[in-house]
Amino acid sequence: MSTTTDPIALTQRLIACPSVTPADAGAMAVIEAALTGIGFTVHRFAAGEAPDGPVENLFATRGEGGTHLAFAGHSDVVPPGPGWTSDPFTATIRGDLLYGRGAVDMKGAVAAFIAAAARVPDHDGTISLIITGDEEGPATFGTVALMDWMAERGIRPDLILVGEPTSSARLGDMIKIGRRGSVNMWIEVPGTQGHVAYPHLAQNPIPPLVAALNELAALTLDEGTDWFQPSNLQITDLHVGNGATNVIPGGARARINIRFNDLHRGEALVARVREIVARHTPDATVTAKISGEAFLTPPGALSEMVSAAIHRITGLTPELSTSGGTSDARFLSKLCPVVEFGLTNATMHKLDEAVALADLEALTEIYVEIIRSACA
Amino acid sequence: MSTTTDPIALTQRLIACPSVTPADAGAMAVIEAALTGIGFTVHRFAAGEAPDGPVENLFATRGEGGTHLAFAGHSDVVPPGPGWTSDPFTATIRGDLLYGRGAVDMKGAVAAFIAAAARVPDHDGTISLIITGDEEGPATFGTVALMDWMAERGIRPDLILVGEPTSSARLGDMIKIGRRGSVNMWIEVPGTQGHVAYPHLAQNPIPPLVAALNELAALTLDEGTDWFQPSNLQITDLHVGNGATNVIPGGARARINIRFNDLHRGEALVARVREIVARHTPDATVTAKISGEAFLTPPGALSEMVSAAIHRITGLTPELSTSGGTSDARFLSKLCPVVEFGLTNATMHKLDEAVALADLEALTEIYVEIIRSACA
Repeated sequence: MSTTTDPIALTQRLIACPSVTPADAGAMAVIEAALTGIGFTVHRFAAGEAPDGPVENLFATRGEGGTHLAFAGHSDVVPPGPGWTSDPFTATIRGDLLYGRGAVDMKGAVAAFIAAAARVPDHDGTISLIITGDEEGPATFGTVALMDWMAERGIRPDLILVGEPTSSARLGDMIKIGRRGSVNMWIEVPGTQGHVAYPHLAQNPIPPLVAALNELAALTLDEGTDWFQPSNLQITDLHVGNGATNVIPGGARARINIRFNDLHRGEALVARVREIVARHTPDATVTAKISGEAFLTPPGALSEMVSAAIHRITGLTPELSTSGGTSDARFLSKLCPVVEFGLTNATMHKLDEAVALADLEALTEIYVEIIRSACA
Repeated sequence: MSTTTDPIALTQRLIACPSVTPADAGAMAVIEAALTGIGFTVHRFAAGEAPDGPVENLFATRGEGGTHLAFAGHSDVVPPGPGWTSDPFTATIRGDLLYGRGAVDMKGAVAAFIAAAARVPDHDGTISLIITGDEEGPATFGTVALMDWMAERGIRPDLILVGEPTSSARLGDMIKIGRRGSVNMWIEVPGTQGHVAYPHLAQNPIPPLVAALNELAALTLDEGTDWFQPSNLQITDLHVGNGATNVIPGGARARINIRFNDLHRGEALVARVREIVARHTPDATVTAKISGEAFLTPPGALSEMVSAAIHRITGLTPELSTSGGTSDARFLSKLCPVVEFGLTNATMHKLDEAVALADLEALTEIYVEIIRSACA
C-alpha cells in the first residue's frame, strides 16, 4: 500500500502533530500533501485571532459537476491530560490497537477518507473535504468560516458525510442522522442580605430560586419523536457562597442546560424559562447561550446509502441515532442532507485514546463504498 | 464618686483589657478587685482547653439567705476588626460618648451593676454575679460550666437579670423576657455524575434537593404566640460547585436555619425536616446543630419589677420582647425566672462601638432600683 492508500500510516503522521485546539502544529500540511498527491485541488486559509484563533481551515475538491459528496472533519484534538501509557503525540501500536490523541476523534477518520479517495481515483461527480482546526474549541472560526468561504464561491455539496466517531460498541453499529440542540442558561436572583434573626429586614433570594427550579425540573418538554428522545432539562449548578450560618444571603445563582429535539428552537426555550423564572421572582436575570439548534436529516437516500455500505463491509445494520452531544453537523445541516459516521467512541477524549487497526481499514473500505455509491 | 461607684471609670478599665473571646487579658482581675472592695466573696476558675478555652469564669456573692438576685454577664468581646476611629482597647471619650470594644456588649453593663452594688452597700437577701469569658464564642466552657459549679454547691438564684444590650433606640425601651431557639441543618444529597447529553446514565441530585427546599420554604411552622413572633425557616446556603456546563453534578448541598418559638423543640424540628427531605430523596443526609432551645419567662413579678425600675429612672415603659438572636439566658432560664436588660444595641459588634455616658449612669441607677426592689 502507498502511504496515501494506507490509513494507518496517515493516521500516525497526523497524530504526530500536537494539534490541540486551536493549534495546527503541521496537521493541515500533512492533509494538504496527501490530497494534492491524489489529484485534489486544495485551498487553505486561516480565520480568527487569539485566544480562539487563528484557526487553520482547508477545503479540497476533485472532479467537477455531478453529485457533490463532501466529507467533513477536523484536525484538532482535545488536550491529552497527564497519565498516558505512551506519548499521546507519538502514535504507538500495541497489539491490535493504535494509540494516540485523535486516533478515533478524528484523525483516523480523516486518514480513512483520504485513503478511500486514493483507492477510487476515477469517479463521476465531485468529492470534497471540509476540514477545520476548530471543532473541539468554540467552533467560531472553523466550519462556520468554511461555509462562508464556500458560499462566496457558490460551492454547495449535495450530500455531506461527517466523520465523527459515531460507532458505539463495534464499528458500524450506529450512524447519526441528527443531533439535539443545546442551550445553557444562568439564572441569577438578587436579594437583600441580613441577619437570620431579623428576616423581615432581609429578602432571601433562595426560596424564589428553588421554587422556579422546582417547576423547571418538573417540566415535560415533549414525549420525544420518531427519531429523537424527549428533550431534557438538567439543573447543572447551584451557588450562593454564604459561609455564615446566621446570615440571609444577598444573591443566589443556578445554571441549567436543555438538550432539545427538533420540536423546539433554542430561543423559544429561553423565553419559556424566563417566563417561569419571572413568575417566581421578577427581579431575576436569565442569561442564555444557545450552543446549537436541533437538526435532523430524515431517514432517506443518504442514510440508506451509508447503511448499505456499512452492511456490505461489516455485516451490521447501523442504528439511526440522534443521541449524544453536538458536532459541526449542526452547521453543515443547513446546506444539504448530513449523516455522521466514523470510528468507535469508547476512548474519545480519554486517556490512552486508541483505534483498532482493523477498524481503520474497515472504515476506509466503507468510505470507498460510499464514494462509489454517491459518485457512480 | 469612688472608682467603684463610678461606672464610667470601671468600663474604661475593662475596655483596656483586650479580652477577645476566649482571651481574658486581665478583665476578670479588674472585676474581682472591684467586687472584693465592696464586700463580695469572689470565686474564679478556668474551664476547657484550646482552641475554645481555657475560659475564665467568676462567681461572686454578697449577703446570705433571703431573695437571691443574680446578675449574669460576660467579660469577653467580639474581635474589633480594622477601621476604628480610635484604638478599640483604649476607652476614649468624644463628646457624650465613650468608645471602645465592649462598651455596650457588655463591659458597660457589668460596670454598671458593680457600681449599683457599690451604691447599695446594705440590703437584705443575696446578690451575686455570674460572669463568664465565653459568651461570644462557642459558650461551651462559660455559663454552662458556671451553672455546674453552682449546682455542685447548691447555689440556685431566685431571679436572674442578664445585662445584655436589649435597649433599641433609647435606654429602657425594651427588655427581653425570652428568646427564640435556633437550629442549623446541613442537607447533603448524593448523586451520580455524568454528561448532560446522557442523563439516563447519571442521577442529578439537584431536582430532589430543590423539591425538598421548596417544600421547606413554604412551611408555616406556627402563627406566633402572645409573646413570640412566628417561627421562621431560612435557607441560608446552596452549594454544588460544578464548573462544567455539560456535566450533571455528583452531589448538592444546602443549609437552613430555623429560629423557633416555645411551641417547638429543636429535635422535633430536625425530625420534621428529615422527614420532608427523605420523602424527596431518601439518600440525603441531614446534619443538625441545635444552638439553643426557645425559652420564655412569662410576664410576671420579675418583668414588672424591672419595668418599674426602668420607668422610675427613664420615664419609659419597656416593650417585653422575645426578638433577636440568642444569649446565655437560654441556659440560665433553666434555673429560675430570667429577664434581660442592658444598654442600647445599635453599635454592638460594629466599628466604633460606643455607649452614651448618660446611659451608663442611668443604667447604674436602674440596677440600683432593681437591687433595692429584689432585696428589700
